[in-house]
Amino acid sequence: MPGISTKGHQMPESPIRKLVPFAEKAKKAGKKVLHLNIGQPDIESPKEAIDAVKNMDLNVIEYSHSAGFESYRKGLAEYYRGVNIDVNFEQIMVTTGGSEALLFAFMSCFNPGDELIVPEPFYANYNGFAVSAGINVVPVPATIDRGFALPPVSEFEDKITEKTKGILICNPGNPTGYLYSRDELETLRDIVKKHDLFLFADEVYREFVYDGEYHTSIMELEGIEENAVLVDSVSKRYSMCGARIGAVVSRNQELMSTMLKFGQARLSPPTLAQIAAEGALKTPKSYFEKVSREYNDRRNLMVDGLNEIEGVRCPKPSGSFYCVAELPVDNTERFCQWMLESFEYENETVMMAPCAGFYSTPGMGEKEVRIAYVLEKESLKRALKCLEEGIKAYPGKD
Amino acid sequence: MPGISTKGHQMPESPIRKLVPFAEKAKKAGKKVLHLNIGQPDIESPKEAIDAVKNMDLNVIEYSHSAGFESYRKGLAEYYRGVNIDVNFEQIMVTTGGSEALLFAFMSCFNPGDELIVPEPFYANYNGFAVSAGINVVPVPATIDRGFALPPVSEFEDKITEKTKGILICNPGNPTGYLYSRDELETLRDIVKKHDLFLFADEVYREFVYDGEYHTSIMELEGIEENAVLVDSVSKRYSMCGARIGAVVSRNQELMSTMLKFGQARLSPPTLAQIAAEGALKTPKSYFEKVSREYNDRRNLMVDGLNEIEGVRCPKPSGSFYCVAELPVDNTERFCQWMLESFEYENETVMMAPCAGFYSTPGMGEKEVRIAYVLEKESLKRALKCLEEGIKAYPGKD
Ligand SMILES: Cc1ncc(COP(=O)(O)O)c(C=O)c1O
Ligand SMILES: Cc1ncc(COP(=O)(O)O)c(C=O)c1O
Repeated sequence: MPGISTKGHQMPESPIRKLVPFAEKAKKAGKKVLHLNIGQPDIESPKEAIDAVKNMDLNVIEYSHSAGFESYRKGLAEYYRGVNIDVNFEQIMVTTGGSEALLFAFMSCFNPGDELIVPEPFYANYNGFAVSAGINVVPVPATIDRGFALPPVSEFEDKITEKTKGILICNPGNPTGYLYSRDELETLRDIVKKHDLFLFADEVYREFVYDGEYHTSIMELEGIEENAVLVDSVSKRYSMCGARIGAVVSRNQELMSTMLKFGQARLSPPTLAQIAAEGALKTPKSYFEKVSREYNDRRNLMVDGLNEIEGVRCPKPSGSFYCVAELPVDNTERFCQWMLESFEYENETVMMAPCAGFYSTPGMGEKEVRIAYVLEKESLKRALKCLEEGIKAYPGKD
Repeated sequence: MPGISTKGHQMPESPIRKLVPFAEKAKKAGKKVLHLNIGQPDIESPKEAIDAVKNMDLNVIEYSHSAGFESYRKGLAEYYRGVNIDVNFEQIMVTTGGSEALLFAFMSCFNPGDELIVPEPFYANYNGFAVSAGINVVPVPATIDRGFALPPVSEFEDKITEKTKGILICNPGNPTGYLYSRDELETLRDIVKKHDLFLFADEVYREFVYDGEYHTSIMELEGIEENAVLVDSVSKRYSMCGARIGAVVSRNQELMSTMLKFGQARLSPPTLAQIAAEGALKTPKSYFEKVSREYNDRRNLMVDGLNEIEGVRCPKPSGSFYCVAELPVDNTERFCQWMLESFEYENETVMMAPCAGFYSTPGMGEKEVRIAYVLEKESLKRALKCLEEGIKAYPGKD
């Protein structure tokens, strides 16, 4: 029997995946599981997107251009101009989700063995794309003590070697919700300019920003036109995760034409989903206002509620729909499993994502969980109460 | 300015892509271009598929399971049982096109530097996925003199080294249309068993088989349950290329669970397209009969017509919707460009795919073109006449 590849052996298990069987067992036993562990919003997709597909006039579901429909790319360019990102449609390639945007960017920029610096905790699937491209992720710790702010320049520079080819940030962050300030981004700009690195920014949570804060894109920074690579997606923006439409945006022409070759090999991004995504461009402002208000309320309820639980601390993030909380337990992998296996409060329990999987440095994040506030407020209140009682009852308290 | 990767530099240009600007210029000059160069059928997608999307009852376009909807995988398993492929839904992973199936199979089976043996000419994008996975394609020539039949065992064995990890076939073939017999497949089975290799079969043209021939899948062969990996797609079967739904099928559990990890990193295949593909499972037999009759007539018209042109020879293939013809010209890349740039007959010209790009061995296929009979018969007749006149007028005749 032929053996699988070493890449296959290196592919990480998702930090949440291990808990799934326990959640299933809990449900079978009649418990209700409140899912604070996922990145799939419960918000409805815009009617404009769904109607575009339902009303399409199409007899053959054909391949699109490998970079996506030109009409959609032109519409996207307009959307970007509306958020202060001045690009034209030739600087945009439509991808199969932000996921494929990351893969193509890594494949096109890096040689196997190259190094990518990423502030941790970070979106765990970056590891999977790094394994696919044969590159190494080098973490720089962003700590809960500093509210997950950008680590100091010196920590980045300590990590830069001959092999370093880029820095990747997620802004606003998954899992932290942290929104980088313009100052922090300019710090990054200076580093990548000085060391001639690519700067990748995963901005898929761009629309989810609270407290009247302004989201600065790396595409707004001057002087790094050839270095900046924006990764984007409609998944979260329009609650259209299953569409699988993303984009990679850059003013670096050589990079764009190289990524297009990877795009041509896989022929085209999904056609039906592009029709939906093009429809979504017509989403009225009121949709975002409503969604933003809803998430803001949920965030306040969740983060304030968490900080009221004894021994819990949770910096209040300004973006995305996640937060990271430190819990007074020995180990959150054990605790989260215990919550599913051995605990219930009023016939319910809570599922959260243990944070260790979001760190690359072994031993980090063992007391932290990521909480996604993707449920309505009534459920979040019950989840908070349930968590509080769970912590009290947990035998492995710290 | 940071430089792109060596992988990026290695990504091949598609053999057709170079001609596109010339086709565009021809159109601008008022010529009609008959496209025999593409793999996008003109056949309508089944109504069942399009209606499934138009009538869907969906408010949130959610991620699906990373291996695809369970209901769709169960439906696919039933489809496979209907074509003598006895698998269950857990042996099927839904992918974003056959393209992603190839990528995940390569990533999961091979280490960088490993070798994959492929009879040439072959589907040119295999090169792109090989570059992505960091592996080397080792061609074994299948010649037009032998009608593109499977090369002799000795030629495969000559190529097997320490690094060889698999053999890939396309059945029926793109670009050749060749349909492997059961005997040929059993020969391959014996080779992969003896040398402990993976056997990948790209069977995306399974439904396009003529002259009452039977398509044998590698999944029907006994004794290579752990070696056989089937790559499939709805793109051609239902003329749904833009859906981007494929599948990878294997009875090798370790391989399936490894490929699933790559699938989990990219989250899910497209949801809307899965709804369409699940709808397509209800396509009546009459649809395939009609399509098959149409392609059969086109094939007869095209291949017979080609062989009647002086100096042209074209083996009559039993499958897919392509054929490879040898033309009496110095070089088909030059000839195809000349047809677009400098020739017209009754205000029309023909675009074909020069075959050199389908070979990995330099210098091979220089007198061959791939012709896709994806136009209706009236257009094919005009294309034949135009080609005949073009060959007569071409200054670089052989
Ligand atoms: C930070 C981040 N980037 C990228 C993605 C990929 O999303 P998609 O491929 O659906 O666009 C996700 C999904 O959860 C994410 O959280
Ligand atoms: C032989 C072969 N395999 C695979 C594919 C990939 O098709 P898709 O990704 O649309 O399933 C094609 C498309 O032309 C093909 O011809």
